[in-house]
Amino acid sequence: MVKDMFAEFKEHSIAEFFKKNRQMLGFTGKVRSLTVIVHELVTNSLDACEEAGILPEIYVEIKELGEEHYLITAKDNGPGIPENYVGKALGMMLAGTKFHRYVQQRGQQGIGASGCTMFSYITTGQPVKAISCNDGKRKEYEISIDLKKNKPVVNRISEEDTEEHGLTVISQYKDVKYEKSNKSPFEYIRRTALANPHAAITFKDPFGELSVFPRSIESNPARPLEIKPHPLGITTHDLLEFAQHQGGEYRKISAFLQETFSRLSANRVSELKGIAPDVDFEKSPKAMTWEDAEKITKAFQQVKWIAPSTDTLVPIAKQQIELSFRNIFNPELLVVTERSPKVYRGGIPFMVEVGIAYGGGVAAADKKGEIMRFANRVPLLFDTSGCAITETVKNIDWGRYNLKNFEEEPIAVLVNFISVYVPYTSAGKLAISMESDIEDEIRYAVMEAARGIQKYISGRRKATEIATKKKVVSRYVSQLASDLGSLSGKDSGKIEKKLIAMIEEKYSGPDAEGDGGDVAEEETSHESGENGEESE
Amino acid sequence: MVKDMFAEFKEHSIAEFFKKNRQMLGFTGKVRSLTVIVHELVTNSLDACEEAGILPEIYVEIKELGEEHYLITAKDNGPGIPENYVGKALGMMLAGTKFHRYVQQRGQQGIGASGCTMFSYITTGQPVKAISCNDGKRKEYEISIDLKKNKPVVNRISEEDTEEHGLTVISQYKDVKYEKSNKSPFEYIRRTALANPHAAITFKDPFGELSVFPRSIESNPARPLEIKPHPLGITTHDLLEFAQHQGGEYRKISAFLQETFSRLSANRVSELKGIAPDVDFEKSPKAMTWEDAEKITKAFQQVKWIAPSTDTLVPIAKQQIELSFRNIFNPELLVVTERSPKVYRGGIPFMVEVGIAYGGGVAAADKKGEIMRFANRVPLLFDTSGCAITETVKNIDWGRYNLKNFEEEPIAVLVNFISVYVPYTSAGKLAISMESDIEDEIRYAVMEAARGIQKYISGRRKATEIATKKKVVSRYVSQLASDLGSLSGKDSGKIEKKLIAMIEEKYSGPDAEGDGGDVAEEETSHESGENGEESE
Repeated sequence: MVKDMFAEFKEHSIAEFFKKNRQMLGFTGKVRSLTVIVHELVTNSLDACEEAGILPEIYVEIKELGEEHYLITAKDNGPGIPENYVGKALGMMLAGTKFHRYVQQRGQQGIGASGCTMFSYITTGQPVKAISCNDGKRKEYEISIDLKKNKPVVNRISEEDTEEHGLTVISQYKDVKYEKSNKSPFEYIRRTALANPHAAITFKDPFGELSVFPRSIESNPARPLEIKPHPLGITTHDLLEFAQHQGGEYRKISAFLQETFSRLSANRVSELKGIAPDVDFEKSPKAMTWEDAEKITKAFQQVKWIAPSTDTLVPIAKQQIELSFRNIFNPELLVVTERSPKVYRGGIPFMVEVGIAYGGGVAAADKKGEIMRFANRVPLLFDTSGCAITETVKNIDWGRYNLKNFEEEPIAVLVNFISVYVPYTSAGKLAISMESDIEDEIRYAVMEAARGIQKYISGRRKATEIATKKKVVSRYVSQLASDLGSLSGKDSGKIEKKLIAMIEEKYSGPDAEGDGGDVAEEETSHESGENGEESE
Repeated sequence: MVKDMFAEFKEHSIAEFFKKNRQMLGFTGKVRSLTVIVHELVTNSLDACEEAGILPEIYVEIKELGEEHYLITAKDNGPGIPENYVGKALGMMLAGTKFHRYVQQRGQQGIGASGCTMFSYITTGQPVKAISCNDGKRKEYEISIDLKKNKPVVNRISEEDTEEHGLTVISQYKDVKYEKSNKSPFEYIRRTALANPHAAITFKDPFGELSVFPRSIESNPARPLEIKPHPLGITTHDLLEFAQHQGGEYRKISAFLQETFSRLSANRVSELKGIAPDVDFEKSPKAMTWEDAEKITKAFQQVKWIAPSTDTLVPIAKQQIELSFRNIFNPELLVVTERSPKVYRGGIPFMVEVGIAYGGGVAAADKKGEIMRFANRVPLLFDTSGCAITETVKNIDWGRYNLKNFEEEPIAVLVNFISVYVPYTSAGKLAISMESDIEDEIRYAVMEAARGIQKYISGRRKATEIATKKKVVSRYVSQLASDLGSLSGKDSGKIEKKLIAMIEEKYSGPDAEGDGGDVAEEETSHESGENGEESE
């Protein structure tokens, strides 16, 4: 009987796993699936262009072939893919250049593009067509995945000479649907353009409508440096693995440590030796035991380290967010906060930048309490609840900032999470895991920006209250003047003029003292203006 | 330069992927990680016992070894694991008996137990100890994973004769923490016992405190049948894959279809032939083309099918939910609804059962708007937001059921989602994907149960209002009686008695007519009592 049960025992490939669990790649719902495909293709194009130092020029076209059947063309001017990698890059899951590197990128798993190839294949039976121009050649391929083995099936169908460079992926899908909603490919591309002002993106929708998002800066953002891992982010197992796989290059553990990790100087090694005296730092890294590694990682925790280098993290930047927000919303008030880098999980560097737009165009566009989420400049449109950004922003006590009901206010909050590793909740990369270090930092950043709008809003509210009072008081001025005139026997016209001047003085001008202002403002006013500069 | 970029191109194993992205397996946060481990081990034990037809007896012990360092023992009386499978079952991801089968089970991925082995190894460097008793032998193993290759490393350390059967997994973890919270291993086990009244579970916490959850039924639930896939749940790619891999056993496509899918009789084949006349049903399944498969799956959509068999889905059952709820809460009111099976994604059978407990012990335990989520009897404690159950229950217009503010009412809602395949949002199996067929069915089930409590609550509210009115009116009776006495010259004592009798008649008894009752009640009263029986 036990044997019967185990007769069913089988091994499966990662491709079969994601075929069955395609919701984990974001493939749930016809509309959403289409956006996820565009997301994966655009993300890869941007990463490739930037890594090659090319200003991105991207063209995306969605064409309707039949009912719930679309053809997607995504073309970039990136470096293209050499022939011996093209199959694995587009037709094998967990293969690529991104998974193992400590560098800020959009993609990080080596699943996205192959996930699209899989989804195309299981809904249409068709391979993906890829045209790669590089090294003077234009080569056209048909690529699919052998799902049972997670291996690419590549067929080169043409080759000719070219001067160009870039990759074009042409793929078709069924069970998807184009809609112009809040979560559509159009909105995805619009937000991508917002967070990537150096990219020129053109989008042609199934109705033939062309949207052009020109670039607003003529240079790529600074290339984030690839870093060595920081000692504080290293587990015992990581250290042992590094020692086993890269340790062979070094004679001694001490040299291996200095070369493998960032901020680990000879002085720090001496310090570590003092903290862990029974570890032999002179022996070969290959001879490191679990106990050694455990003692060293424990010692790591006791040393005062310089924080990870900030060169590794490249934000969108204050000026660019302001520019983008003005273009989209032209808000009444705009505050952008950029915090300094922090670490989470002990040693993974990250930073948070926040923009808050209030009133003006935000109100005109009828946006209320809108949260725009980004991770390494990639818009996150789905899985809103369950994301560290949404949950943190919603749980802020907005009353402290004179915004009693966040969801009813004309406010848009942009949060960009930047890191060499984004802890997505699933392989679909749609939401950021709720880890406390990350939530705290998002909270501080949003609160900092919120303080910037608080003063303005309380000022605006006060102004409204003063205007109302002035109106009320003014209504009685004539009567009062004539009464006072009768009583005193003086000219009531003069009295009225004098009274009006008094009212003007009390209720107008920059120093007007209303006795309004609500409790929330009084309580928190000592905090305002500490940080978060107003830019309008 | 392009070549430089691709020098970094690498392939990775699924084990490396989940090591880096361990939050996708639920390993985020020290407290939560510990619960996730208990969840994976208990889930596997229950599945193994039930599949072998054994009444489950499970022992879980958590022992503190040091700071944030624990030893977990999970012992069951299941069938054990034969030697040639034990390594893969506990030390290889995507291997097991569950992934490919169409049968209602708790586990379905072949990742959970190996995920624990990985987490143990990367936090402590220690292998997992497994003791398997089966076929008259007690064998003890040490098991770990080679993460680079996703291959088990197995070391058998002892073997002796035994009469017993079962599996014990002893594993240690660092970076975890035991707390007695809402999301603790204790709460997980308590809820598991609630949904599995046939299981006897004993739990010993790190303080040595023993909690015994005895079984309340002496037989396993009916064993859900393993089914052939239903034609409506089949994509073109699925059909082609079946034809390629299992089609060799049949000479003709017609025979292959009848044997491979459920509800597909000879009559249905004739019907399919009529709808897709240019498919040759007499040729070999191995010769099926994508076009053939596409035409057949399209034809599938046009045939009227009998719904999937209900034998495949085994709910906790009304009586058991009532019993469990009474044990936990002893509520004032209890309604359980069990809906008939439905299908989602075209053809995957599922059903929803819902219990609502109101007042009484729910109020006493200070539970407000509590949602208890289960999938195939497995409690889901984490990722509350972003789960189809939570989102659906919260978005119900509870005002219609006289519960104005769900989150402030003394109410507990249990939802069990039952299916041969649960579409979890991530490999951590913590939340159900928000797919519309599923959300709709959950909504209907909860609303059905809610109608059952609506009448009771409106009755109770009316009673309260009547009592208040009676009290108010009664206050003036003496004065009124004495005034009427003076006016009429009659005995005010007698008048008072008469008035009291009138008040009693108007405001008491089962047919008391208050003129209270709020609008919501009036509007929806025509709906109540259609469904959802009251059981108290």
